[in-house]
Amino acid sequence: MAKKKPVVSIIMGSDSDLPCMEKACEILKSFAIEYEVKILSAHRTPEDAAIFAKNARKKGIKVIIAGAGGAAHLAGVVASFTTLPVIGVPMESKALKGLDSLLSIVQMPSGIPVATVAIGEAGAKNAGILALQIIGVSDKKISEKLEKFKKDLANSVRKKNNSLKNV
Amino acid sequence: MAKKKPVVSIIMGSDSDLPCMEKACEILKSFAIEYEVKILSAHRTPEDAAIFAKNARKKGIKVIIAGAGGAAHLAGVVASFTTLPVIGVPMESKALKGLDSLLSIVQMPSGIPVATVAIGEAGAKNAGILALQIIGVSDKKISEKLEKFKKDLANSVRKKNNSLKNV
Amino acid sequence: MAKKKPVVSIIMGSDSDLPCMEKACEILKSFAIEYEVKILSAHRTPEDAAIFAKNARKKGIKVIIAGAGGAAHLAGVVASFTTLPVIGVPMESKALKGLDSLLSIVQMPSGIPVATVAIGEAGAKNAGILALQIIGVSDKKISEKLEKFKKDLANSVRKKNNSLKNV
Amino acid sequence: MAKKKPVVSIIMGSDSDLPCMEKACEILKSFAIEYEVKILSAHRTPEDAAIFAKNARKKGIKVIIAGAGGAAHLAGVVASFTTLPVIGVPMESKALKGLDSLLSIVQMPSGIPVATVAIGEAGAKNAGILALQIIGVSDKKISEKLEKFKKDLANSVRKKNNSLKNV
Amino acid sequence: MAKKKPVVSIIMGSDSDLPCMEKACEILKSFAIEYEVKILSAHRTPEDAAIFAKNARKKGIKVIIAGAGGAAHLAGVVASFTTLPVIGVPMESKALKGLDSLLSIVQMPSGIPVATVAIGEAGAKNAGILALQIIGVSDKKISEKLEKFKKDLANSVRKKNNSLKNV
Amino acid sequence: MAKKKPVVSIIMGSDSDLPCMEKACEILKSFAIEYEVKILSAHRTPEDAAIFAKNARKKGIKVIIAGAGGAAHLAGVVASFTTLPVIGVPMESKALKGLDSLLSIVQMPSGIPVATVAIGEAGAKNAGILALQIIGVSDKKISEKLEKFKKDLANSVRKKNNSLKNV
Amino acid sequence: MAKKKPVVSIIMGSDSDLPCMEKACEILKSFAIEYEVKILSAHRTPEDAAIFAKNARKKGIKVIIAGAGGAAHLAGVVASFTTLPVIGVPMESKALKGLDSLLSIVQMPSGIPVATVAIGEAGAKNAGILALQIIGVSDKKISEKLEKFKKDLANSVRKKNNSLKNV
Amino acid sequence: MAKKKPVVSIIMGSDSDLPCMEKACEILKSFAIEYEVKILSAHRTPEDAAIFAKNARKKGIKVIIAGAGGAAHLAGVVASFTTLPVIGVPMESKALKGLDSLLSIVQMPSGIPVATVAIGEAGAKNAGILALQIIGVSDKKISEKLEKFKKDLANSVRKKNNSLKNV
Repeated sequence: MAKKKPVVSIIMGSDSDLPCMEKACEILKSFAIEYEVKILSAHRTPEDAAIFAKNARKKGIKVIIAGAGGAAHLAGVVASFTTLPVIGVPMESKALKGLDSLLSIVQMPSGIPVATVAIGEAGAKNAGILALQIIGVSDKKISEKLEKFKKDLANSVRKKNNSLKNV
Repeated sequence: MAKKKPVVSIIMGSDSDLPCMEKACEILKSFAIEYEVKILSAHRTPEDAAIFAKNARKKGIKVIIAGAGGAAHLAGVVASFTTLPVIGVPMESKALKGLDSLLSIVQMPSGIPVATVAIGEAGAKNAGILALQIIGVSDKKISEKLEKFKKDLANSVRKKNNSLKNV
Repeated sequence: MAKKKPVVSIIMGSDSDLPCMEKACEILKSFAIEYEVKILSAHRTPEDAAIFAKNARKKGIKVIIAGAGGAAHLAGVVASFTTLPVIGVPMESKALKGLDSLLSIVQMPSGIPVATVAIGEAGAKNAGILALQIIGVSDKKISEKLEKFKKDLANSVRKKNNSLKNV
Repeated sequence: MAKKKPVVSIIMGSDSDLPCMEKACEILKSFAIEYEVKILSAHRTPEDAAIFAKNARKKGIKVIIAGAGGAAHLAGVVASFTTLPVIGVPMESKALKGLDSLLSIVQMPSGIPVATVAIGEAGAKNAGILALQIIGVSDKKISEKLEKFKKDLANSVRKKNNSLKNV
Repeated sequence: MAKKKPVVSIIMGSDSDLPCMEKACEILKSFAIEYEVKILSAHRTPEDAAIFAKNARKKGIKVIIAGAGGAAHLAGVVASFTTLPVIGVPMESKALKGLDSLLSIVQMPSGIPVATVAIGEAGAKNAGILALQIIGVSDKKISEKLEKFKKDLANSVRKKNNSLKNV
Repeated sequence: MAKKKPVVSIIMGSDSDLPCMEKACEILKSFAIEYEVKILSAHRTPEDAAIFAKNARKKGIKVIIAGAGGAAHLAGVVASFTTLPVIGVPMESKALKGLDSLLSIVQMPSGIPVATVAIGEAGAKNAGILALQIIGVSDKKISEKLEKFKKDLANSVRKKNNSLKNV
Repeated sequence: MAKKKPVVSIIMGSDSDLPCMEKACEILKSFAIEYEVKILSAHRTPEDAAIFAKNARKKGIKVIIAGAGGAAHLAGVVASFTTLPVIGVPMESKALKGLDSLLSIVQMPSGIPVATVAIGEAGAKNAGILALQIIGVSDKKISEKLEKFKKDLANSVRKKNNSLKNV
Repeated sequence: MAKKKPVVSIIMGSDSDLPCMEKACEILKSFAIEYEVKILSAHRTPEDAAIFAKNARKKGIKVIIAGAGGAAHLAGVVASFTTLPVIGVPMESKALKGLDSLLSIVQMPSGIPVATVAIGEAGAKNAGILALQIIGVSDKKISEKLEKFKKDLANSVRKKNNSLKNV
């Protein structure tokens, strides 16, 4: 079954991040890309996270999406154990509204990048799209679907613009 | 000639960004990946930027790296015209030290991601590495080289650690 | 019909910005200035935005008001295609409360200004007033109406002050 | 003499702001627009600032550019006494690097807009260009010169891009 | 009547600031200090604000408390027209939560101080206490009452602490 | 000797704050107000600070000026032991440029105000002026001198403005 | 009774901090560590705080946990009177969401450290755990319990991860 | 040899952090506490960091001090593998001056605390003192030395204060 071979891993530090990270799942699903979802904590299950990261490429994973909040180390920790592209999604944290999550994810030292997207749901959805763009570099079917997605996006804006005129 | 077929475009809004963005060039060069460097301004040459972005995939480009500062729109503008992965490098701006550049690049709306890396030179170098990771998803030679690069990185840290002990 | 010839364009990246941007519409309406409202996304319909901006002056537009949030590129992108004054209204974004929108709009590079106003509704209303002030530079009727508006504003404050005394 | 009739006033709170604000002077001079330069402090000469603002339109001024730093009140104070468009330039302050200046200028309450531009020299230059755009709304010669200025700007970027290729 | 001779003026830019500024009124009332409350806008009634400030000392006012939000200029504008001590209370603004108000009030240029207190209600109450402390410099009755107030404050904390132990 | 009876105490956490705090000394000296200067640390000599604060009023002190940086507790600690007005001057700290000092001083809880001025030298000078304004509430000679000081301030701005015209 | 000899003191500036600080109590209780809870204000009961801190070690206290918000001086003030380790918990303040609390606690000057944890409830719980870790340095039973706690933490993450798979 | 048995580990992500972290070494040395210094990167040598942390207690380490900058994960990563107290020192980073380092270290999720100190050298020195305080919980010699250190600190402030008076 295709289902047995996910190509994208969506991981997060806590199940409270799930509602946000589902935006990434949805977009991958709509492109019929197989993905897996895991709760892995950089701080509470560091060894599981390390094992996951070290084995991801062998298992057929092409892109990892990691959501985390506060002192958000998950994306960076996973990136330290793999050479796959790792996309970091900063969660909107309670007190500092995700500014802490963003800086903890994006300000990685030279040598170990994390591809950081916007704070919260827009970022989670965009993480899914970025994963598709990465896959689309060598997969023409996906890149063509992305072109169509882009056109649909434009058309939905145009439709809203037109409905405005009619009012 | 290989030189005729760059697979990574490194673009920036101003030639003052060049010293920083050269960190991306250097890492690509060290992996023998062909790249092109362009000065394209989202604000001063918006049409050139649009034309560049629309044609990038056709020309064989696989990843675009865009450096910009302040109200840093270049990465987002280019991403709006292509479905290639676009990596954004926030320049360290004069007054706000790159916080403006970072937020202008990373907080993209749902639908159009930009893979954002750290402010300044560490970010520029990591943009190059991230481009290699993206290419490495479907290019085993590159992904293997990345594994070696990672090991060298670890060894250089270990060497520094050891020289510390000897003191 | 006057309605056929708007002199102010009010554009925004998403229909979710409409409730805020209506503050700009209301003030223009109260001055009997014709305006048009458009949903145009710097990221989702970049070409529509470019075409709009390039043709605005020819169509009789004198001032463009652009509302956008997050990595708010709309005002800057439109400003890159026109020499009309462009007023940028930073939307109050969900996580960072408009600080991202503000910096993305105001920190424009040398050569391409955007006249930035306050975050959210106060800014949207002020964008309308600023458009009237710009038109009023060469339109005595409008500048005289603005003087009256300013006096009314003062009087409404005085009325509140007086009602305070009576309590 | 044309010199007797400035159409733009460039004011600032302190002579230490002059090196920055000269960027506004230079661009106006290059467009042969008459301007005056004044040191007027919202806090040290508030009455002079008020008298200046109340008389500006009568004297033939069309746009006011105000530079100030820290708790930067000059632009707002002047705007409270005139219905001319007022452009605010946030100075780069010593401790907070202009973030204080920016927020003090841009976050004006509903009713009294200030057209805010970027912190520091890029903002000062852009204030001059924005003044020209405002004048250009009803002055075809200026708007045509602005089109040429925009093309020159694009060409200077292109020249830099080409010189890059030749290296 | 004592009521005819207020010694503290509590002014604010808008009647929406009243619920917050009432904390200053309450503390003054509890010390039997006469005060007046005024709505005066630095931006909408600048001349009223100037006249108020210039006449305050003559009228017998000893301390001015000014509450304002956003680009909060009221305290600074009033301070520019008087040599009385002016206490500034930063309102909690909608988008930026009072950080803009705070910086606009506290970062005054050399020559014109504003005695700034905390954002919001704690600040408003403290503005009242600070006014009492200033009056208490030369009014022994007030300074003695302040000593008692301080003791009561301590005792209320101690009472809470004790009730904790009993639980 | 008058020198034996200072009415203002200028205290600071470290001798490295002295160059900044001297701005407060200078202005007091120019008004012939006796002051004392002390190094007192909220953290290193907390008991000395407490004893100082508890005895200040008895010794004839009318206003306390406290400069401190980082987690700047000195002003708040002193304010907790006295009912004299305490003016806090946030030092420009090394990493965070005084934002930490400012927030640590200004955000005092309800009950214990600190009159906070700007970060750094402008704040130190303004602390001195604010102390004079507080003394001037009941000392006509000082309040008249302050009026003259204010006029001189205005005249020095006017002189600069005039010298500009002559250029 | 063991209850007579607490080894951890949990103090806070106000009873409104109690719901947050209870997270520290709970974790200590679950490890059967005796603790005391006190309301002590750096600003309202500074002498009580000083006496508490000076006597803590003698009474058998090993670690002090202090929660405070805004210009949060409690942890620093207590640390200035003891050589016991002091853990500071920044409360989430109303306007600035705990950024003020955090900087006021963590940016202590050289000589007097405060061990700062995260803003709000996560920080309060972690303060309890950190106290246990400190006690565990010389108390094998506690350090072994901490190892078990760490494993349970990991297992609860794994359980959530597994339940995800089953969905 | 005592040298063979360090009780404090001082680790850092890069040798560029060494000049700052030496402040921690110096204070430990002055207390005759054995320590070791290691360069260990959370991102470049994650496995070395994990192995170090897992073995630290067994080797006799009582406290770990970790310095890191930017997306500073080292302290958190080490804390995830040990139940020893981990002290985090935020390095002053180039662009964001350590605000990123601070938030990445202090905002740890519930379960895994890091005892965070100030940004930069003051923090490094305080990390050393905090380590001593932790050791001093069960080591009377150290806690007594700390009392003396505290007195010396106070005396050095008093000496500075006195030399001021003599001037």
